[in-house]
Amino acid sequence: MLSEFELIARFFNRRPSPASANTVLGIGDDCALLAPTLGQQLAISSDMLVAGRHFFPDTNPEWLGHKALAVNLSDLAAMGAQPVAFTLALALPSVDEAWLASFARGLFALADSSGCALIGGDTTKGPLNICITVFGHVPPQQALRRAAAQVGDDIWISGSLGDARLALHAMQGQIDLPLPQLQLAQPRLHQPQARLALGFQLRNIAHAALDLSDGLMGDLQHILQASQVGAEIDLPALPVGAVLAQQPAELQVQYMLAGGDDYELCFTAPVARRAQVVQAGVLSATPVTRVGRICAQLGVRLLDSAGCAQTFSIHSFDHFQTP
Amino acid sequence: MLSEFELIARFFNRRPSPASANTVLGIGDDCALLAPTLGQQLAISSDMLVAGRHFFPDTNPEWLGHKALAVNLSDLAAMGAQPVAFTLALALPSVDEAWLASFARGLFALADSSGCALIGGDTTKGPLNICITVFGHVPPQQALRRAAAQVGDDIWISGSLGDARLALHAMQGQIDLPLPQLQLAQPRLHQPQARLALGFQLRNIAHAALDLSDGLMGDLQHILQASQVGAEIDLPALPVGAVLAQQPAELQVQYMLAGGDDYELCFTAPVARRAQVVQAGVLSATPVTRVGRICAQLGVRLLDSAGCAQTFSIHSFDHFQTP
Repeated sequence: MLSEFELIARFFNRRPSPASANTVLGIGDDCALLAPTLGQQLAISSDMLVAGRHFFPDTNPEWLGHKALAVNLSDLAAMGAQPVAFTLALALPSVDEAWLASFARGLFALADSSGCALIGGDTTKGPLNICITVFGHVPPQQALRRAAAQVGDDIWISGSLGDARLALHAMQGQIDLPLPQLQLAQPRLHQPQARLALGFQLRNIAHAALDLSDGLMGDLQHILQASQVGAEIDLPALPVGAVLAQQPAELQVQYMLAGGDDYELCFTAPVARRAQVVQAGVLSATPVTRVGRICAQLGVRLLDSAGCAQTFSIHSFDHFQTP
Repeated sequence: MLSEFELIARFFNRRPSPASANTVLGIGDDCALLAPTLGQQLAISSDMLVAGRHFFPDTNPEWLGHKALAVNLSDLAAMGAQPVAFTLALALPSVDEAWLASFARGLFALADSSGCALIGGDTTKGPLNICITVFGHVPPQQALRRAAAQVGDDIWISGSLGDARLALHAMQGQIDLPLPQLQLAQPRLHQPQARLALGFQLRNIAHAALDLSDGLMGDLQHILQASQVGAEIDLPALPVGAVLAQQPAELQVQYMLAGGDDYELCFTAPVARRAQVVQAGVLSATPVTRVGRICAQLGVRLLDSAGCAQTFSIHSFDHFQTP
């Protein structure tokens, strides 16, 4: 069986490693050494993915390698930061070389296309657990913070919502979905795309931003609480996923509001910046949709097409309260 | 039961957070923001601790909080870096408030005394797993790298070796140890002290360095392979742990060479710098012992008091080859 060090050498320590202006020292020492670019701050995020919790244990490992990094890159996108490097800590029940080769393929494909170098980490035996910590650059005062929403701001969402949760529930047998539709929706669950280009374009345009991982209703609360404001959401304006659009209207709303795993950006921007937001979407080749507004009155009001408030029983995902 | 966000707020998000000149934004957004000090590089290390693998599941959580951070700080020490900040990703089987309070107490006591601020992370449900990524400052060209050993260098070790493994084997019933001795040895296993002050003092004095986590024989190989050199170790010179010193000579050698969990520094320095190494030990209040030398001939030769080569069957710890 491969030793810990052979495993790292074979699957994760690529020589020559991809060029990275900021990596002074990569894998193989007590620490990696990073030389931050002058005048940039470092945005740092850490996400832990647990088998059976965040993914099916038999998930295609190439998808998993992609997703483990993508959910971290999505946090950089939500700050308007550009990827620089990441560390990978991996607990494995055993050394499965085919699994590792596939996982590394998915991981490095995304790392390379994002300009994000693997600079270090850890491997150990244990229940499958993937912990990535990612580093990005953002100039001082330009990070998109949750606490920066202003009363009167528009609320925007990138891409579309709900297809990831639709795929999950279909795979769990909670909902019937014809195979062709499942195959269309599955990439949204397994291979989320971090909205890095959009986040970058939104610097100096958007006020507050975050990425949607636990569902719009739950995640939007983080902006509202941090900014001490409320929100109105125009339900008919929500961008529905292409596959979910073929489901009943009530299910569409449910999955868009409380879906999770969307990894889209939700951000606020002044009304005066609407044209610039649209241009940021064009420049980043990312659809953006205006879905509501920030209000002084606390809480979230969901408005139908007539502008009347609707009531839904919505629960956001919480790791310790969801079975 | 506490939600994920209440858990973070109650146990990990301390307000006001301890002053940190480098933390622009701490816990609570998509990313933390760090402003590296001008002229410093960032040393980064990530360690994952798994229950039943790196610690007994019933370990005092206060010790565990200390150790999870200490093993990461030890990597900074081995580079000569000064702690700045860290992220914590935590998978918990359930929310045990008493456990969390105790864990946080141990974690923050060490974080505060090391000037290392918790700036972000993740919590999720799952088999107990603690993944810390730590950040430190070190000036360009001053990091102590594994590849920097030179033929003729002395080999030095901080503190003493073997008491941690003695305590572990006593707790596992592999060896009989009277309770008072076990109580003396246990802190070496449960509450390792990262040699940060010594690492800092060794900048511009030592050549290569690393920290001893898997045992001297195994870890020293990393310096030798990276530097393409060999080593002679004077067995009688090895600094034996105070409790282990009361055990048979053969066991002493075994635990000192292949013990693990010592978290001492092993470093090389030119013969001409001996006085400065000793002074670095004094300035950092850390014992340092000269235990051998770097040679051109590859491999490790263990010498007895007569200078004759000894042969031992020594196996270093490997996570995937040790059951």
